[in-house]
Amino acid sequence: MLTYSFTGITDNLYEHLYKCIRDDVLSGSLPADYKLPSKRSFAKNLSVSTITVENAYNQLMSEGFIYSLPRKGFYVSEIFPGEYPAPETESSDKTTHTQLSSSSSDSDYGGTGHSTSYRVDFSSNNTSPDSFPFTTWAKLTRRILSDSRDKLMTNSPSNGTIELRLAIAEYLKEFRGIYTSPDNIIVGAGTEYLYTILLQLLGGGMTYAIEKPGYRKLSMILDTVGIKSVDIPVDDKGLNVDILRRSNADIVHVTPSHHFPTGITMPVKRRYELLKWAQEADTPRYIIEDDYDSEFRLTGRPIPPLFGMDSSHVIYMNTFTKSLTSTIRISYMVLPDELVARYRDRLSFYSCTVSNFEQLTLAAFISEGYFEKHINRMRTAYRRKRDCILDAIKKSPLDSISEIKEENAGLHFIINLKTGLSDEEVTSRLRKVNINLLPLSYYGSETTHSFLINYSSVPMDDINNIIESISEELNSDS
Amino acid sequence: MLTYSFTGITDNLYEHLYKCIRDDVLSGSLPADYKLPSKRSFAKNLSVSTITVENAYNQLMSEGFIYSLPRKGFYVSEIFPGEYPAPETESSDKTTHTQLSSSSSDSDYGGTGHSTSYRVDFSSNNTSPDSFPFTTWAKLTRRILSDSRDKLMTNSPSNGTIELRLAIAEYLKEFRGIYTSPDNIIVGAGTEYLYTILLQLLGGGMTYAIEKPGYRKLSMILDTVGIKSVDIPVDDKGLNVDILRRSNADIVHVTPSHHFPTGITMPVKRRYELLKWAQEADTPRYIIEDDYDSEFRLTGRPIPPLFGMDSSHVIYMNTFTKSLTSTIRISYMVLPDELVARYRDRLSFYSCTVSNFEQLTLAAFISEGYFEKHINRMRTAYRRKRDCILDAIKKSPLDSISEIKEENAGLHFIINLKTGLSDEEVTSRLRKVNINLLPLSYYGSETTHSFLINYSSVPMDDINNIIESISEELNSDS
Repeated sequence: MLTYSFTGITDNLYEHLYKCIRDDVLSGSLPADYKLPSKRSFAKNLSVSTITVENAYNQLMSEGFIYSLPRKGFYVSEIFPGEYPAPETESSDKTTHTQLSSSSSDSDYGGTGHSTSYRVDFSSNNTSPDSFPFTTWAKLTRRILSDSRDKLMTNSPSNGTIELRLAIAEYLKEFRGIYTSPDNIIVGAGTEYLYTILLQLLGGGMTYAIEKPGYRKLSMILDTVGIKSVDIPVDDKGLNVDILRRSNADIVHVTPSHHFPTGITMPVKRRYELLKWAQEADTPRYIIEDDYDSEFRLTGRPIPPLFGMDSSHVIYMNTFTKSLTSTIRISYMVLPDELVARYRDRLSFYSCTVSNFEQLTLAAFISEGYFEKHINRMRTAYRRKRDCILDAIKKSPLDSISEIKEENAGLHFIINLKTGLSDEEVTSRLRKVNINLLPLSYYGSETTHSFLINYSSVPMDDINNIIESISEELNSDS
Repeated sequence: MLTYSFTGITDNLYEHLYKCIRDDVLSGSLPADYKLPSKRSFAKNLSVSTITVENAYNQLMSEGFIYSLPRKGFYVSEIFPGEYPAPETESSDKTTHTQLSSSSSDSDYGGTGHSTSYRVDFSSNNTSPDSFPFTTWAKLTRRILSDSRDKLMTNSPSNGTIELRLAIAEYLKEFRGIYTSPDNIIVGAGTEYLYTILLQLLGGGMTYAIEKPGYRKLSMILDTVGIKSVDIPVDDKGLNVDILRRSNADIVHVTPSHHFPTGITMPVKRRYELLKWAQEADTPRYIIEDDYDSEFRLTGRPIPPLFGMDSSHVIYMNTFTKSLTSTIRISYMVLPDELVARYRDRLSFYSCTVSNFEQLTLAAFISEGYFEKHINRMRTAYRRKRDCILDAIKKSPLDSISEIKEENAGLHFIINLKTGLSDEEVTSRLRKVNINLLPLSYYGSETTHSFLINYSSVPMDDINNIIESISEELNSDS
C-alpha cells in the first residue's frame, strides 16, 4: 500500500500527508485515476487517525488533486493538460460580447461602491465595527506617531515603504507559499487603483479576458479607459481555457482561490491548463490572479496560489480591504521580474497612493503577528456567522424553496431559490423591505434564481427576522 | 527635400503646412537645429506660393518651434529640455515628447517622487518632522478611533466622506472665496491620482495644453496613458494665451497663483484672456487650475482663484500634501456642475482612494480650526526659513554671482547664477557633494542658469555650510 514517513515533520499530520500526496500527484508518481487507499485502511497503515486522512483527502479534493466516486473511493485526478485542438474561428465570437462592461453603474460588487442604507445588504462587504481590531490599531498608531516621525515625514518610494513591503513578503512566504522579494511588490490605494496602474504597465494595446460571471469593476474600468475586453465563460471548474485560447486575449483576470461570485475553487488541472495558455504563445501573456479573500477559507488549508506555480506569467493581487476593513484602502500586487523592471522604468514617477501613516501602522500590525491573530479570529467569527445564517434559513419556510451552494471559502455563498419570480422581481421585492439581494445574473451569469449572500456585514442579532422577511416577501402574492 | 502632401486638406494651405512642420518638430522627426528649406525652394517643391511658406514659417517662429538666423535661413528650435545626469534610456529620441517620461526616475518635482539621500534637496518638498502637528494629529486620531467606529467602518462615497467634503467646502469659502457644494468636491489619494481620474472624466480624445516650463508629472502621466498634449510657453505673465488659442487644445493646465517652477503670479488681465479662451469655443474647453501652494503666499492677500471667476469652465485642484505633509496622500478637486453629473454617471463606481481613518481625522483637523492655525504657523516658519537662506546667500561669496527672483509666494524661489558652467555642470558638481539643485531647464524652460530653491525641507541649522559648499563647488577649477 501507498505509504509515507511521518518522522521529523513540522507540519501537523494532515498537512504533511496532504503535501506528500500532492507532491506525488504533481511529480506523476501517482498517475491519473490511481485509486487511493480507503481512509480507514490508510490511517491504520500510517498509524494516524482516520480524521487525519479525511482532512488530507478533503483538502486535496477541494484543490482538485483527487476526486471521489460514491461507494467506490478516492482517485487521482488528471492534472496535466493534454494536447488542445487547433484554434477554431467559428463560434468563438459568441463569448466575446462586452455586455457587462457597458451596463449600469450601480456598482455594489464587493461592497466597494456606494454606501447604501439597506437594513441588510447581502452584496456588501462593509465590515462590522465589532470586528476591526480598534484597540491594537490605536496602540500601534499612537506608537508610530510618537516614535517614527522621521519615517512618517519621508516620501515613500513609488511602490510603498520598505517596512510594509517586507512585512507583506514575509506574510506571503508564511501563509501563501509565495517567495518574493519586496522589490516585486507594489502597494497602492485599493485594487481598483492597482488595476489602473497595471493597465498602464501592460499597455493599452492588449486585449483583456474577464471571467463571466465575474468582477464587474474590472470591466467597468476597462470600458472607461477604452481598452478592449472579452468575456470568457466560467464552468464548474472555473474559467474555460478552451474558449480563452480561441479568443485573442493577451491578459486574463481570474479568481482561482474562490471565484467571484460563484464561489468555485479552480482545480489544479485547470490551473495547469491556464498556465499552459500563458506559456505557449510567442507574444507575452499574463494571468492576473486576484486572491481577494483567500485568507477566509473557512476549513482546511488555503488554496496555493497560481503565482507559486509560475512567477513569470502570473501577476498576484491581494488586498487588506477584505481582511481588515474595506474602509482602509491598501492593496498590493506582486509582479514578475520583467514587469518590475518595466514599472521602474515607466511608472515609478507616480507617488505611492497610500499615506505613510497607514503603511507603517499596517507594517507593524503584520510583522508583530497581529494580522495573523486577527485573521484567525475573523475566520472563526465568519464561520459562526455563516452557520448562523444557514441555521436561520433551515428553520424558516425559506428552507423548502432554497438550496445552498458553498465551498467553505471566502465571505459569501450562493443560495438557489425555487420561485416563480424572476431575478429582477426577487431583488426589487426585497429592496422594498430594505434588503439588498443580488442575483448571479447581475454579475453576468446566465444562471437564474441564484443569489449572492455576502455575510460579512450582516447584523447577526437580526438574522432570524431578516430571513423571515425574505421568506414572506417571496411567498406573498403581490 | 522635406516634403508634405497637400491633398484632401481642409485647413487653409499655410495652416496645413504649419501643422505638418510643427508636428514633426514635436514628434522629433525634425530635430533641433535642423535647417529648413528656403521659402522659395520649399514653395516650388510643394507647388504652393512663397507667401504660404512664409506665413507658416512666421507662425512656427512666433510659437517658438523654429528660429531664423539672418542671411542663413530657418532652423528647428530646441523644444525639449536637454539631458540631465540621470539613468540613460533609448537616447535616440532626444527630442520627442516621450523623453521626459522615459527619462530619469529621479522625479523630484514637487517632492512627490522617490526618497533620496541628498544632504539637502532643493527640488524636494519633503516636510521636516518638526513642522507636522503630531500632537494634535495624534489626539484627533485617538478620538476618532474611539468615538467614530461606525463611520470608520462604513464605505466612503466615491468622492469622499461627507465630513471631509463639508470641511473642505467651508475652508474654500473662508480662505479662497470659492462657494461650492460638497457635491462638487472629489477627494483622492494625491493630485496625480486625481489627474488620472480627470483624464477618464474628460475623455481620451481631448488635447491637453501644458505650461512650458511646467509640471513635469502631468506630461509624464499624459504620455504614459497615450493622450496628446502640446506645450504652451510661459512668458513673464504666465501661460501665453495667444499661443494656446492657436493650438488645438481643449484642456489647459495652469498654476496661476504661483507658476511652477518660475514663481510667476498670473496677472488678472491674462486670467481674463485665459477664461475667454475657455468660453469662446463651441466645443467644451476646460481650465485645470492647480492651486497647489496658494496657502503659502508669504505676504499680502492670497490671489483669488480662477474658479471664483468662472466655475463652469474651471476645474479647481488643491492638495494637503503641500500644506500638511507630502506623505499624507490627500488631494481634492472641485468640478463644474456639468462634470459632477458626468462623474456620477460614469466614474462613481470607483472607490474613494483615501482611507476613512485619514479622511475623518483631516475633516476634524480642518473644521475644528487646527488647519488654519497650522497654515499660519507654517507660513511664519517658511518665511523665516526663506529669509534665513537669503541671508546666508548674502553673507557668502555666492552673493556676487547670484540674483534672486521671488514673489513672496509658495515654498520656492529662483536663483540666477552668473557662472561659466552649464546647467548640467552645476547640477552634477553639486550632486557630488550631495546637494540636489535643479535648473529651470530641467522643467522645460529655455532660460539657463536659473535654479529652483524649494526650501521646505532644508535643514536650517546647516544652511550656512550648505551655501558655503555651493559657493566652493561653483568656484572650484575642476
